[in-house]
Amino acid sequence: MRKSIILLGATGSIGVQTADIIREHPNEFQLTGFSAGKNIEMARGIIREFRPEIVCVQGAEDAAALRSEFPGVSVVSGSEGLIETATYDADVLVNAVIGSVGLQPTLEAIKLGRTIAIANKETLVTAGHLVMENASVYGAKILPVDSEHSALFQALNGEKLEQASRLILTASGGSFRDLTRDQLQHVTVKEALAHPNWSMGAKITIDSASMVNKGLEVIEAHVLFNFAYDDIDVLLHRESIIHSMVEFQDTSVMAQLGTPDMRVPIQYALTYPDRLPRPQAKRLNLAEIGKLNFQEMDYERFRALQLAYDAGREGGTMTTVFNAANEQAVAMFLNEQIKFLQIEEMIESAMDSHKTVSKPDLGTILEVDAETRKSVKNMLK
Amino acid sequence: MRKSIILLGATGSIGVQTADIIREHPNEFQLTGFSAGKNIEMARGIIREFRPEIVCVQGAEDAAALRSEFPGVSVVSGSEGLIETATYDADVLVNAVIGSVGLQPTLEAIKLGRTIAIANKETLVTAGHLVMENASVYGAKILPVDSEHSALFQALNGEKLEQASRLILTASGGSFRDLTRDQLQHVTVKEALAHPNWSMGAKITIDSASMVNKGLEVIEAHVLFNFAYDDIDVLLHRESIIHSMVEFQDTSVMAQLGTPDMRVPIQYALTYPDRLPRPQAKRLNLAEIGKLNFQEMDYERFRALQLAYDAGREGGTMTTVFNAANEQAVAMFLNEQIKFLQIEEMIESAMDSHKTVSKPDLGTILEVDAETRKSVKNMLK
Repeated sequence: MRKSIILLGATGSIGVQTADIIREHPNEFQLTGFSAGKNIEMARGIIREFRPEIVCVQGAEDAAALRSEFPGVSVVSGSEGLIETATYDADVLVNAVIGSVGLQPTLEAIKLGRTIAIANKETLVTAGHLVMENASVYGAKILPVDSEHSALFQALNGEKLEQASRLILTASGGSFRDLTRDQLQHVTVKEALAHPNWSMGAKITIDSASMVNKGLEVIEAHVLFNFAYDDIDVLLHRESIIHSMVEFQDTSVMAQLGTPDMRVPIQYALTYPDRLPRPQAKRLNLAEIGKLNFQEMDYERFRALQLAYDAGREGGTMTTVFNAANEQAVAMFLNEQIKFLQIEEMIESAMDSHKTVSKPDLGTILEVDAETRKSVKNMLK
Repeated sequence: MRKSIILLGATGSIGVQTADIIREHPNEFQLTGFSAGKNIEMARGIIREFRPEIVCVQGAEDAAALRSEFPGVSVVSGSEGLIETATYDADVLVNAVIGSVGLQPTLEAIKLGRTIAIANKETLVTAGHLVMENASVYGAKILPVDSEHSALFQALNGEKLEQASRLILTASGGSFRDLTRDQLQHVTVKEALAHPNWSMGAKITIDSASMVNKGLEVIEAHVLFNFAYDDIDVLLHRESIIHSMVEFQDTSVMAQLGTPDMRVPIQYALTYPDRLPRPQAKRLNLAEIGKLNFQEMDYERFRALQLAYDAGREGGTMTTVFNAANEQAVAMFLNEQIKFLQIEEMIESAMDSHKTVSKPDLGTILEVDAETRKSVKNMLK
C-alpha cells in the first residue's frame, strides 16, 4: 500500500523537494492532493504529473480555470479550500506553506488525528500550545521536517524523552557569521542573501543571517519536545554537518549527521519510522571534509537569538509578536526601507510594548499577529 | 527491583569501572557475584563492600581461605568455578575477563538465555558464530560494552538493522598515529604504552598503537551486527569524541558522542534500554573542544588493520589465528624480545601458514588458539 500524501505549499522550496521524493519512490508514495497558492503554471504541471484527487489554489478564478481543464480533479480555493485540502483523507499531511496561513488547516487536520509533517514554522511558533495539546487529545502525530528538528527527532528515536537532558541545535551562523556588530551596521540586502552553505528563499536567508531563524527553531524545539529553554542550547557549527544533537542524562550525546540536503529530513518524515534509500543523495564523507568546527554562541553578537529565548520564556502571545515583528521587519529590509540591525531593534521594540496574553486562542493569536505587523510598519514613520 | 549483576573479571579495568557504577547506583544494581583471578586482596575488598552471593578465584587454596573468612559467601575456583559463577542466577552477566578464558562461561550463560554485557573481545572474535547462533536459539541478549560497539548499538536504537547501510568505527590512531612506517621500526615499549587519549592496560594500549585493537573491533562489529566487511569502515578521528557512527540507507548518519569515559558504555549495557544519570561524568562541551578531525585510514601504514579485515573475510578459525598470534607477539614485545613491527609480521606469518577450518566448534577454536601461540613463540628461534 502506497502512502497517500497531501502537500500544502507544493510550489515552495520544501514543496518542490517533497514532490521530488514522491517522484523518486512511486511504489511508496502518491500525491493525493496539494495546494499551490498563485503559481497556476506550476500547479498545472504537478496535476499532469501526479494526477491528484484534490487541488487548492488561492484565487476562485484560477480554480475555475483548472476545474474545466482537469475535470477529474476536485479544485478548490481560498482559505476554506485550504482547510478542505488539509483535511482530505490521506496518510500524511505535509504542511510546507509559508506564514500563518498554515495554522488553521493544521489545527483542523490535527482534530482528525492525522499524521502531520510540519515545515511551517509559524504554526509551531505562534500556536505551539494549541498544536501540541490538540495533537495529544486527538492522537495526531506531529513529525518535524526542518533538518535540525528532524535530527533531534532521530536522535530521540528508541529513547525515553524524560531520559534526555539537553537539546543542542547547531547553527551555521548564516551569511554574516564572521562580522562584528559594527560591521553589521552597513550590510546590504545582497550580502545578506548570500548564505554560505546552501540557497533558500529570501526570507529564511535573512532570518539565517540575523539568527532569527535559529531563534524560531529554539521555540519550535521547545514546543515539539517539551524541553525547558534552559535545556536547549545553540552551538555555532560552520559546516552544518551535525544537524543537531541530544544529550542524555548519562552524558551520552546522540547526533544526526549528513551532507546538507533537505530531502533527507523531508523523506524521513514521510517514511518514519522506516527509512528508504536515497541513491541520488551525496553520502557523508568525513575524511574528505577533514574538520568540524564548533564555537560558543555569542548572544550579544546575535541579539535576535537572545530575543527569541526571551520571547519563548515569556510564552503566550510573545512568540507570536517575535515572529510577526520579524516578518514585517524583514519585508522592510528586503525593500531597503530599514537597515539590517533594525530588524532586531524592531523585534525588541515590539516585544517591549506588548502585554502578553497567556494560552491565547486562535483568534487572539491572529489578532496579535496583525497588530504587531501594523505597529512595526508604523515604526518607520 | 534492583538488577542483579554477575561480574567476570572484577579486578581488571572494566571490572573496576563496573563496580564504580554499581556503587553509584545502589538502588538500581546489586553485585550478586564476581570472579577475581589471582588478586585475592582486591577480591576481599569487593566481598566486604558488596556482599555478593558467589565469588570465583583462580586457585583452590585462595578459595578455601576466602571461604573460611566469609562463611556466608559461596566461594568457587578454577574454570569450573568460573562457569558456575557465570551461570549463577542474575539479570545481567558482565563478561570483562581478558583472553579466551571468557569463552566457555559466556557460552554456558547464553544457553540459559541470559543477558550478557560483553567486554571480552576474544569471545566474539574467536567464537562469534557460536555466540550469536546460540544467543538466537536460546534467546540470550548480547549487549556490547566496548565504547565503539556501544556507540553503534545506540545509533541503531529504534532503527531497523536492514535499513542501516554502513558501520563507521572511529579510531584515535593510538600512540604512534603520527609516525611513518620507517619511524615505527625503532619504537620502544615505553613509547607504545603512552596512549594519547586515555590510560588502559598494557596489552590493549599496544593493540591500540598497532591498530590490532581496531581490527578486533571490526571483527566484533561484523559478529554483533551481521554487517559485511565491505560495509564496515574505520575512520581516523584523533579526539575520540565521536565513538562510532551508523550510516542508514537514506544517507542519514547517527553518531554517539561523549567525553571518553568507559563508564558511560558500561552503564548503558547495565541500564539498556534505559539510561541513568551520571552526575560524576564530564559532560561533552564541543565549543570548548573546538575542532573534530577526521582522516582516511591508511591500510599500508596500519598493516595490522588490513590483516584483521583479511582474517575476517576468510572467517572460520582465521580470526582465532589473528587474535592468538597477536596476543603472543604482544607478550614478546612487552618482554622486549621482538620489535614493534614484528607484531604484525608474526600475525601475517601465522595467518599465511594456517589452513582455515570453517564453522569450528569450541574444541577446534581452543586447539587453533594454542597451536598459534606456540608457532608464534617458535618464530623467535
